[in-house]
Amino acid sequence: MSDTGRVYLVGGGPGRVELLTVAAVRALRQADVVLYDRLAPHDELAELAPHAALIDVGKTPGRHPIPQDDINRMLVHHASQGATVVRLKGGDPYVFGRGGEEALACRDAGISVTVIPGVTSAVSVPAASGIPLTHRGISHLFTVVSGHAPLTAAEHEHLAGLGGTIVVLMGVATLPTLTAGLLTFGMAPTMPTAIVERGYGDQQRTTIATLATVVSEAARASVTSPAVIVFGQVVALANDDGGDREAWALLRRAGDLASL
Amino acid sequence: MSDTGRVYLVGGGPGRVELLTVAAVRALRQADVVLYDRLAPHDELAELAPHAALIDVGKTPGRHPIPQDDINRMLVHHASQGATVVRLKGGDPYVFGRGGEEALACRDAGISVTVIPGVTSAVSVPAASGIPLTHRGISHLFTVVSGHAPLTAAEHEHLAGLGGTIVVLMGVATLPTLTAGLLTFGMAPTMPTAIVERGYGDQQRTTIATLATVVSEAARASVTSPAVIVFGQVVALANDDGGDREAWALLRRAGDLASL
Repeated sequence: MSDTGRVYLVGGGPGRVELLTVAAVRALRQADVVLYDRLAPHDELAELAPHAALIDVGKTPGRHPIPQDDINRMLVHHASQGATVVRLKGGDPYVFGRGGEEALACRDAGISVTVIPGVTSAVSVPAASGIPLTHRGISHLFTVVSGHAPLTAAEHEHLAGLGGTIVVLMGVATLPTLTAGLLTFGMAPTMPTAIVERGYGDQQRTTIATLATVVSEAARASVTSPAVIVFGQVVALANDDGGDREAWALLRRAGDLASL
Repeated sequence: MSDTGRVYLVGGGPGRVELLTVAAVRALRQADVVLYDRLAPHDELAELAPHAALIDVGKTPGRHPIPQDDINRMLVHHASQGATVVRLKGGDPYVFGRGGEEALACRDAGISVTVIPGVTSAVSVPAASGIPLTHRGISHLFTVVSGHAPLTAAEHEHLAGLGGTIVVLMGVATLPTLTAGLLTFGMAPTMPTAIVERGYGDQQRTTIATLATVVSEAARASVTSPAVIVFGQVVALANDDGGDREAWALLRRAGDLASL
């Protein structure tokens, strides 16, 4: 460890190790301590961070996640002792990642904190299924919401009115409330809707439906988290034929994690 | 070249080479041909793609960009001849990158096409200035729009009503129209607003204003493209003190592009 500790808030991307950034790989290699989430890429962590203590803050043995305040304290504690600390999150740290709270906690404690942005699941998981969030003549804006808590009626109204593409993260549990709200405020029942489960994983699966049918289709397919839900005409461009698995395999064989 | 050509649509991130993904670096190393944009990271391209012909499609000698249809034809032409073709874009290929059109052109021609998502400027450039797009208790959704063409009155109305964070890409020229529209439909004149120019570049600069003052402040500061504009309470978290330059320098020195 150096005399001066520091914290890197690192976006781990949607889960495939090749979708880490170069900066993320380098930060992990220097790390003394890595605190990682459930959705961060963790299969290869021991190889990526060979000198680090690896701490899973996604859940305790009792399967409860560690409270955010405790995570903040752990970041400050280790960095105060001179450690290079990597806080590895799924996706991007500033998109529903509570990275802002962690950055503030570090700054309040006088700890140097650097954000390394990542490939957000909001954009990349739809792309894994062939869905672009924008497309000329179809969609020139998009909104990203969390399904963690229900939206207000006003939010449903303006989301339904705005048009473009709507992307929902962590939205499987609250899908019935969201679709009811969008229907109430006039979004077309025929609006194409997709649910992409386990984006970039070996078990990736895309369920295509409409705003009116997606709740029943999700139940029929036993959709589970993690999944990204997309509402919008761009869903018609979905192309999940697995045709590029060979291309990804070429990329995987083309490098050596140890030399990254 | 192999017998079978293929196309990779690659997100180049916001411009710093360390914010390329591992997959992007590996695709570039295998490339026979690279077609790159004005906003793609291109200073290090000869090193990253040592075997490739590098083609700048961002502008011709006469400074006009190459028409999209011509780019589509070039992708298909080179891949049809057996080349591994990388189409390198700034940010993410599916966020205002016209990647969807290029993917369709390749598929229509029977060419294998693989999207490698990137770090989108919509998320990362605000982060470079300390601004998280979401923050507990402040913003739980965000909308990304292009300023390339003016929005409709209905879009202004619902954007103003939705709340959360609004991110505008390519919006310097149309900023007066956008701010007038948001004010007309009731967004608070005091809404914090930031313009981040040249995110992650040596000349990064953040201008902080409000919805009511941002047009005059942008003129006073002679703001130019490329810039990302953010409207929302999260702008109050901006922290562009350059304090993490040392951390990025450590990451830069920690690796060797040739060994990536």
